[in-house]
This record gives sequence, C-alpha cells and structure tokens, in this order.
Amino acid sequence: MLPPLHGDNETMNTNLSGNMLIAQSGGPTHVINQSLVGAVLEAKKHGCIKSIYGSLHGIQGILDKDFINLKKESVKTLEAVANTPSSALGSVRRKPTAKDCARIFQTLEKYNIRFFFYIGGNDSAETAHIISEEAKKAKYPLHCFHICKTIDNDLRENDHTPGFGSAAKFVAQAFMGDNLDNRALGGVKINVVMGRHAGFLTAASALARFHEDDGPHLIYLPERPFAMSRFIKDVKAVYKKHGRCVIAVSEGISDRSGVPIVVKAAKTKEVDSHGNVQLSGTGALGDILAAEIKAKTSITRVRADTFGYLQRSFAGCVSETDAKEARGIGAAAVKEAIKGTRDGSIAIKRKAGATYAVEFKRVPLKNVAGHTKHMPGSFINKAGNDVTVAFIRYATPIAGKLPVIGKFKMVRVPKK
Amino acid sequence: MLPPLHGDNETMNTNLSGNMLIAQSGGPTHVINQSLVGAVLEAKKHGCIKSIYGSLHGIQGILDKDFINLKKESVKTLEAVANTPSSALGSVRRKPTAKDCARIFQTLEKYNIRFFFYIGGNDSAETAHIISEEAKKAKYPLHCFHICKTIDNDLRENDHTPGFGSAAKFVAQAFMGDNLDNRALGGVKINVVMGRHAGFLTAASALARFHEDDGPHLIYLPERPFAMSRFIKDVKAVYKKHGRCVIAVSEGISDRSGVPIVVKAAKTKEVDSHGNVQLSGTGALGDILAAEIKAKTSITRVRADTFGYLQRSFAGCVSETDAKEARGIGAAAVKEAIKGTRDGSIAIKRKAGATYAVEFKRVPLKNVAGHTKHMPGSFINKAGNDVTVAFIRYATPIAGKLPVIGKFKMVRVPKK
Repeated sequence: MLPPLHGDNETMNTNLSGNMLIAQSGGPTHVINQSLVGAVLEAKKHGCIKSIYGSLHGIQGILDKDFINLKKESVKTLEAVANTPSSALGSVRRKPTAKDCARIFQTLEKYNIRFFFYIGGNDSAETAHIISEEAKKAKYPLHCFHICKTIDNDLRENDHTPGFGSAAKFVAQAFMGDNLDNRALGGVKINVVMGRHAGFLTAASALARFHEDDGPHLIYLPERPFAMSRFIKDVKAVYKKHGRCVIAVSEGISDRSGVPIVVKAAKTKEVDSHGNVQLSGTGALGDILAAEIKAKTSITRVRADTFGYLQRSFAGCVSETDAKEARGIGAAAVKEAIKGTRDGSIAIKRKAGATYAVEFKRVPLKNVAGHTKHMPGSFINKAGNDVTVAFIRYATPIAGKLPVIGKFKMVRVPKK
Repeated sequence: MLPPLHGDNETMNTNLSGNMLIAQSGGPTHVINQSLVGAVLEAKKHGCIKSIYGSLHGIQGILDKDFINLKKESVKTLEAVANTPSSALGSVRRKPTAKDCARIFQTLEKYNIRFFFYIGGNDSAETAHIISEEAKKAKYPLHCFHICKTIDNDLRENDHTPGFGSAAKFVAQAFMGDNLDNRALGGVKINVVMGRHAGFLTAASALARFHEDDGPHLIYLPERPFAMSRFIKDVKAVYKKHGRCVIAVSEGISDRSGVPIVVKAAKTKEVDSHGNVQLSGTGALGDILAAEIKAKTSITRVRADTFGYLQRSFAGCVSETDAKEARGIGAAAVKEAIKGTRDGSIAIKRKAGATYAVEFKRVPLKNVAGHTKHMPGSFINKAGNDVTVAFIRYATPIAGKLPVIGKFKMVRVPKK
C-alpha cells in the first residue's frame, strides 16, 4: 500500500519510488517513438523508478492489464524503435470515465505504478488531466504527465509540437516534387493536407518554395473563411501569371458560418447515399474543388491529390530537429516527475535569440487539455490565400533540412 | 545541307558531326533528369557533337523552336538538376503526325541537329520511332534514340525501367509507415497505387514487409480480374487472422471482361454527373472499396488513401540504384549514337549471375514503341491477391536501400 497524498500541491510529499507506466494515444507521428524511448532511457538512470512498463493501446491497455516490460528491450532495439514511425505501443482514442479511472487506479496499485506518462495530443492531455484529477480525489499518489505530440501543431503552450516538424517536412517535400511535376505538364494541381481546425501543416507547403515561380501559389487554411467565388478568382489570376497553378488546401476549410466545404458541397448538390460516402471519404474535397475549376474556367488539366495518412508516418522522412526534440521531451517528462512534481504537460518553448533553440517546460495539464491552438494572424496574409514570411521563419528550423532543387539557367537558343 | 542517307541500315554512312537535341516526354519521374544529364555530360566528351540543345516540353519545343543551350549550364547546375525530380525541360503528351514530322525536319536542319534523344515511356518510344521512320523517308540524316523511363515499369525489352526503382521505394516506404499506423489504430486500410495496365508499382508495396504480420496483407493487380465478392472474403480472412488489414490496389483493377472497377461502380450505382466527376477523380476507387467493406462486413474503421502524383516526383526519395542506372542509360544512348548507329531504344538488361548487375543495350525502336509489358505470371500468387517471392527477389535491388523498421520484443508483464 502506497502512502496517501498530502494536499494537491504540485510537489508530492510522498516516498518517491515505484514503477513507471508509459503509453501512446491518438494519431501516430513520425517521432512519437522518440519520446517513448527518451522517457525509457531517462527512467533507467533513476533508481527510484523500478520497473518500466508500456501499456498497449493507451489507456485501453490499463483497463485490459495489457503491459509489456520495457526493461527487457535492449538499447539497440530501443534505438531502432525510436527511429521507426508510428506508435510502437499501439494507440487508442478513448476518454476515460470516472468508472474507468477507478479501475485504472486499482490496476496501477496492483502493479505499484507511481509514474504515468501519456504521449499524445490535446485529447490525450485531457485524458492525463482527468486521470490526475481523479487520482487526487481517490488519494492515489500518482505522478501523471502528458508528453506532447501531434502533426497538427495545435497544442496550446507549445511553440510547436513533436511530430509537426517531420510531417511539415513531408508536406514540403511533396510540394517540392509536385511543383516540378506541375511545371513540366502544366494545368492546376490541388493538394489536400491534414488539419481540420489548425492550418499549420497546410501552411508548411510554403516551405517548398525556393525559386520565384515555385508553388504552392495559393494556400487555404481553416483559420480563414473559404469562398468558392474568391477561390476561382485566385486560381484564374495565378494561371494567367504562371500558366499553371499549385494549390494547398486544408481538409478543414469552411465557409463563413463554419460549415466545412466538403459537407456543404455534399448538401447543396444533393448527392445520393453513395455520393455521401465518397464525400466524407478521401478524395472528396479535392474532387469538388477540381470540378469547380473545370466548370468555372477554361483550364482543362486539373488534378487533385489528398495526402492522407502518408503525412504522419511515411518511413524515412524525418526532421532531425523534430526527432531530437521528441527524444528530449520524453526525457524531460521523466526528469520533472522524479523531482517530485505531481503532474503536468511538457511543452516546447522557443528561446529568445538569433539562433534557433528550445527548452522544455512543465505547464499545467488543464492549459493543454482539450484546447486547440490556431495559426496566429501574423502567419496568414491579408488576402487569406497564403502564409507570411513570419510563418516561413517560424517553420523553417522545425522542418529541418530539405532536398536541394536544381534548376537550369535556361539560356534560350535564338530562333532561326 | 547534310549529306543524304544511303540505305536504312542501322549504321549510317554519313559524316558523323552536328548538333544534338534532347527532350523529355510523358509523366515525370524521380530520375528522368539523371538520364538527361547523363546524356549531356557524355555528349560533351565527343567533338563530333557540337552544340547541345534541350527542347522544352518534348516535341512541342521542336515545333515551337523553343530550345535552351545546355552547354551554358555549369557542371554544378547539371549535377543539381540531375538530383532533382520531374522533367527539367518540361514535358508533353503528343504523338507527331506526318505533317509535324515535316516541320520537325525543317527545324532540325536549320539548327544542324543530327542527334536526337527522347527520354520517355512507350508513347515516347513511339514518337521516336515515327520520327526516325519519317526521317528515313525524308532522307534526313538523323541519329534518333529513345531513352527509357517510366515509373510503371511496363516497357518491353527492359528488365526494368529508370524511374520505377525510386517510385517503388516511395511506395514501399509509404506502406512501411502505413502498416505501422494500421497496427497502432487497427481497422482496414486501402491504398490505391498508380498503374493502369501493369501492376509492378502496386506489387512494390510488398517490399514494405519485414516482420511476419506486416502489411500489405493483400495486393490486387490489373493483371488479374478483380471480383468484389472475392475481395470481401479476402479482407474478412485477413481481419480474422491479424485483427487488421492493409491492402494495396492498383488503380487499374478491372473485372473479368476488362471493365475498370472504378468505371463499373459508377455505372451500376447510377451516380449523377457530380458523382461521375468524382469517380474519375482521385479518391474514387479507394472510397468505393472502403464503402463495400463497411457495407459487407462488421468492420467499422475503414480508411482509403490514393497515393497520386506523390509517387512519381516526391523530392528526397530516390533509389540509389535507380539514379545510377538512369544516369548510365542517358550516357549509353549518346555512346551508341556516336558509334554511327542510326536509331534505337536503350534498354536495361539484367546480367546473369548471383549478384545484381545490369547492362545497357540498344534494341529496335519498334520493339518498345506503344507496347505494354505486364507482370509475368511467376510474380503473382495463385489466388491473385499477392506477389510471389520471385517478385521480391526481382524488385529488391531496384528499389535500393529502405529504412530499418524497429520492433519491440514485447515481453508481456504477467497479469495480476
């Protein structure tokens, strides 16, 4: 039996010793395993942390007592897993009820778990917050930490989130190639990028620009209302200037009243049940926009792609900055816990100064739990169809090194 | 005025001296610029080749006299362009008429062009073939060569084609990540891969497998008739075994009578004009298959992605083998031309032996022009829903080095 907690201040006056449990939740990222391994390697350094367990599929694994022994994994395996995308412990999307929490504490007590780390986005922060609050009520002495991750980059208190940098790099590399593809064959190309409420990842498409006429030429974010007539005008203007057009669109773009364009098109066109399935499916938004361009302009070659799940776990496309920070944030959570801090979320703060540097700071769970951070106004241009230089400056060090794009001088041969 | 041709034997008895023109055609690839630069650097070594011109947008550039001077590009620029995806000279999809050819020869003569290289797939081989045959008729002395490229890997006479290796690597890396994503969150995931008539690129998804339960668990190719009932049976069986299922589907899968599934579903469901647009669009096939699984099984989490254009020009994802061979095939074409050979297509032949090695051989243009190579039967399993080990052996050296996927030993903690 563990000693009861005294008060609910941030530092617990309990005997700091016991087992540790770590789990992953929500959508996988390229570097979520870096955070897992960062926490495990740090925990191994501290005698007060006895066994290190991994819960399979987030809190579902606690409810099912489905744990693996992470001390049985060699450093070589840990390093290999750290460099592997997606959630090695499996994931889940589940919000714990008070009843779940009661079962969770029973299990934690049985396994003498005193340290709990939950890697995930704002829903996972909410889960950690619920568990920590219920632990206080139940007087279960638990050091409960949320470790930030999400490709959406939409967590409050964070300059940016682990996972975003690598996904941003993927999006940038995709647009770098696609811009050249579009330059070679012409026409209009639309790419739909993940991000229902926050446009950071769609905005990262701008990192693909190096030469003056490089696309994306237009960027539409969920932070600004989308009007189809304005969209068509924008496309026509770019096409007139460049003879081609590459467009980045956030999957969550919505009209002035907040209705997603993909839903709106489905309704107004009274598409049948089969059509409805498609509209909520993968290619719908891109197809709607492409059809609209074909109908309202004389441009014949119009193509649309939806990047889909490739953005969050494409093997071999990782930002070095992102990998390093994800590792660091996992370790930072463990360091904070063994200081005796009761709970919190570990956030990335950017240091002031000319060169890029970050530090990890504990913030209250409630500041992150369930909230969504949006693109600040300073990152979006006035017309609402592009990002600003401020965004490029912000995102460049996070996405890390990008491929070099070569281009001919193109010295014309005089016509004969 | 150039001396007239004597006979139409493969070696021309003409004074081997003049300018060179090179162009790119059809869909871009990751390494099509390697072939361009390989040819340019080789040509610079030979005094009989005077100026080196690049035609913009394939034969369209000849018709428009839109040439750039490639001797004005530094080696540094040439190397940077070689390592950049997509067609640096721009591309086109156009089959020359006899009238076009007459104009083409007028222009070639004006610019004293004696060497012509066309980098492309089987349509581009056909263009080169038409131009070479018309040149013979017109007694225009032209060394006319097709340099193979296509991500589809569907050119006859070739063991494989430049561009396929890098696209195969992209598909493999995408499935490596997506398999882990599916393992983390469960359900069924369908990925639609390019390839209307040849399944090589879809088959390359199998290169993503390293551990026993790794997906793709099912692979459907255009070379085998697709039956929806059989598909649902397959999915159910995999789901029962693994609790999840990752599927690779070629965009061109068709039924027993050769009707593409995407067209068939559109017809039988009588989707309206808006729906029809979508069905010929990007996400259609994936959405159709996902809807079918949802309707015919109890599986609720079903997702579909269509890889689209990312497959052929994603910056930063290149097979080293592919890049090297694409460079080599460009150089080989020039070497063949300055030997005095009239025309041909340069093909990749695999050498016999235990270790992987290739050689470049001239083959007649007509052998490649307009034909499509399909997956041989030995590469497809009996059930028609997977590839064989023979395919894995064939494709592995072409796709080159893949990321290492780490995996926990997963030592379970005894339940308490």
